[in-house]
Amino acid sequence: MPSGTADLDALFHALSDATRRAIVERLTHGAASVSTLAEPFAMSLPSVVQHLGVLERAGVVESEKTGRVRTYRLVPDATAPARAWLGRHRLPAEQRLDRLAEHLAGAPDA
Amino acid sequence: MPSGTADLDALFHALSDATRRAIVERLTHGAASVSTLAEPFAMSLPSVVQHLGVLERAGVVESEKTGRVRTYRLVPDATAPARAWLGRHRLPAEQRLDRLAEHLAGAPDA
Repeated sequence: MPSGTADLDALFHALSDATRRAIVERLTHGAASVSTLAEPFAMSLPSVVQHLGVLERAGVVESEKTGRVRTYRLVPDATAPARAWLGRHRLPAEQRLDRLAEHLAGAPDA
Repeated sequence: MPSGTADLDALFHALSDATRRAIVERLTHGAASVSTLAEPFAMSLPSVVQHLGVLERAGVVESEKTGRVRTYRLVPDATAPARAWLGRHRLPAEQRLDRLAEHLAGAPDA
């Protein structure tokens, strides 16, 4: 799972493209081959392969080749470091409101 | 607040650089001038200004000029669309675990 500075660079960069985000969205529904992933996009297969390469190097997806078909799937919790970073780096007032909400949700008899 | 596809592109791109993330981190502690923000970085002032421009165009920071000093601050909830996108696009099992955790935290007398 990416966690260092360069890894976070790669992770946020991988998510900064609408096509790559659409691929991630598709893969939340299950693994898919390159040609299945390419279908919804008005884009050449090599372009889709290039986007998948960016996602794979960032640790967001992984792939497996069976015969001539390469299948891609999401890496579990791959985007957790990005979510963690975003959660930590907010204005203090926003963080306090979050903690208050957590406190109220978790209070045993309030 | 960014919400469209191009806005999410700009937001994730703005966060894909370690220097820009460090600037955001510094600004969570309060507003700061360009020269204050530049101090910790072994980087020319124009480079820091360029990074601030990327953050400002992505809606992450805003600035105000008083006399000759331009002061930058975080835009409240600027990264919320990125957090929302990351929260929605996870594997179904991860989402189910999150909902279970929320349910247990929020259950009135369980």
